Amino acid sequence: MRPFQEERDAVQVGDRITRSHAHTLAGSTVAGMRTIDWVDGVIEIIDQTALPGETTVLRLSTVDELIDAVRRLAVRGAPALGVAGAFGVALAVSTQPDPTRAIEAVATARPTAVNLARGVRRAAARVPEGFDAVLAEAERIRDEEIASSVAMAKRGADLVRELCGERPKLLTHCNTGALAAVEIGTALGVVLELAERQQLAGVIASETRPLLQGARLTAWELRRAGVPYRVAVDGAGPFLMARGEVDAVILGADRICANHDVINKIGTYSHALGARAAGIPFIVVAPESTVDEETPSGADVEIEERGAAEVAGDLPAANPAFDVTPASLVTAIVTESRVIRP
Amino acid sequence: MRPFQEERDAVQVGDRITRSHAHTLAGSTVAGMRTIDWVDGVIEIIDQTALPGETTVLRLSTVDELIDAVRRLAVRGAPALGVAGAFGVALAVSTQPDPTRAIEAVATARPTAVNLARGVRRAAARVPEGFDAVLAEAERIRDEEIASSVAMAKRGADLVRELCGERPKLLTHCNTGALAAVEIGTALGVVLELAERQQLAGVIASETRPLLQGARLTAWELRRAGVPYRVAVDGAGPFLMARGEVDAVILGADRICANHDVINKIGTYSHALGARAAGIPFIVVAPESTVDEETPSGADVEIEERGAAEVAGDLPAANPAFDVTPASLVTAIVTESRVIRP
Repeated sequence: MRPFQEERDAVQVGDRITRSHAHTLAGSTVAGMRTIDWVDGVIEIIDQTALPGETTVLRLSTVDELIDAVRRLAVRGAPALGVAGAFGVALAVSTQPDPTRAIEAVATARPTAVNLARGVRRAAARVPEGFDAVLAEAERIRDEEIASSVAMAKRGADLVRELCGERPKLLTHCNTGALAAVEIGTALGVVLELAERQQLAGVIASETRPLLQGARLTAWELRRAGVPYRVAVDGAGPFLMARGEVDAVILGADRICANHDVINKIGTYSHALGARAAGIPFIVVAPESTVDEETPSGADVEIEERGAAEVAGDLPAANPAFDVTPASLVTAIVTESRVIRP
Repeated sequence: MRPFQEERDAVQVGDRITRSHAHTLAGSTVAGMRTIDWVDGVIEIIDQTALPGETTVLRLSTVDELIDAVRRLAVRGAPALGVAGAFGVALAVSTQPDPTRAIEAVATARPTAVNLARGVRRAAARVPEGFDAVLAEAERIRDEEIASSVAMAKRGADLVRELCGERPKLLTHCNTGALAAVEIGTALGVVLELAERQQLAGVIASETRPLLQGARLTAWELRRAGVPYRVAVDGAGPFLMARGEVDAVILGADRICANHDVINKIGTYSHALGARAAGIPFIVVAPESTVDEETPSGADVEIEERGAAEVAGDLPAANPAFDVTPASLVTAIVTESRVIRP
């Protein structure tokens, strides 16, 4: 968030986290943006519920504020959630005499992404050493996620080139850019790297109902980066693949199971079926921190069911936030250190 | 529309078809509702863009008004479009000295559904005999569609019982109820028939982006009929099937090709892939008027591309309104006279 400090004049209080100080940064650029960071003793996040209309920074000074931000997806994306979990421990230690319950509450704020609980665990292991050790561990996790993004972007771009040849057309789902991962991103980091190498014909951003992370966040990042893109409704993905408008699907993961089943935003499995039917690669890009060897398969993952109101106002709704893509449909998983081919 | 005549006091002018007289019928029931009819020398339609907020009847007295209503989906659904095309010829004959160009304009107002052009052709063949013969033919098409709905509901319910056993859970896409088919409907007619027979556990209405015919229209019809339902985002369909929450997919068609490829609302193909992967039946319900022996396969159908604004405001978008489901993914096609098993 540091690049934005000088723009703090235009303060706008977030309407839900009322105790936070919020800053409108409409003129800021993606370059150097951090979705989440520790600044002057509190957690700062870019409020992803306000994008693309407004770029608002929320200052979270209590564990309750952080948990609320995590639950309503003001901060989201597996790598960013890992950092949020770790900074959450620092916040718990700095604000509470006995932080145990607060730390547990952060770890379980959302159930599906493994990174949140894992970030909490790593930072919590330093609690006996005191606040400075906790914060140092959290900042290490943040820096590791940034370094992972850099490595994934390069490795993923090389793989896409290998699998798809010159200037492919890609489809991505949800948001896996800088907004999801402190800086750069996972799958969208690969897309941006390909664009920078002049090796990308264009990308379709699947809108990602119900909360439209694709249409709101991914489109916002792609427009700012000058990458040619089109938004499409989620149900159009498989047909656009069948019609030859997509050469590969590339997206992120909230958890990768020991058997390489991929847990990711609802709609992912549908795109995987489309890719298989069209005979195109289905590529998952996620840091090693998302790989969960302790979860045998997708059947063992608790899929977060979110409120019906997100889908259709006051109508009854089924609203699983994630789905399970079996490893058999995954062409490759790219991490910062390897390419897994299930 | 006749059951609503007595409620005409509350007149509300449609905001786009400004020359029409519109009537708010918030208290009307689905029972006996006709989506489209010929009343007092003009075409009356229920404005499907205003639902579920308002039940508004538009009176279309010129061919231009009809074409506008067809293009913006105020009237939609393959069977209803066939009737709209036929009544459109009556309107052309009654308002123009030489109706030839107006008739052609109606026939081509939307390219993908075969029923529109087919309804126009049937009524236009009577033009030499004069207005009364044209109107009689159009009313015959309307009555045939109603009779087809009755027959499809029974045949489809029998088939679902045969394929799925007692009280299945179904998933449907887009809107195929009375709103799409003068009365009763196609696939949703089957759903209602099963509910009436007490042979339905519940139905998931896929919301059907971008125009939400599922969340707006199907949910509205299901709620009024007292059928247990939940709305789900389109991308969730295949995962809900994989998770065992759907025993069969049942939906309509805008055109059925000679090889039994099915052209239907975008998102249909994705559900078909999900059904195949889950090993559950994928059932298409459509009248014979939708079967187009002159179109060899899905590859020969012009897929209507609609404006980007429907998807994501001012962002660039890919917006095919329909997709192609290969016959190999279709378990059965139910018409008023047969069950086709591709």
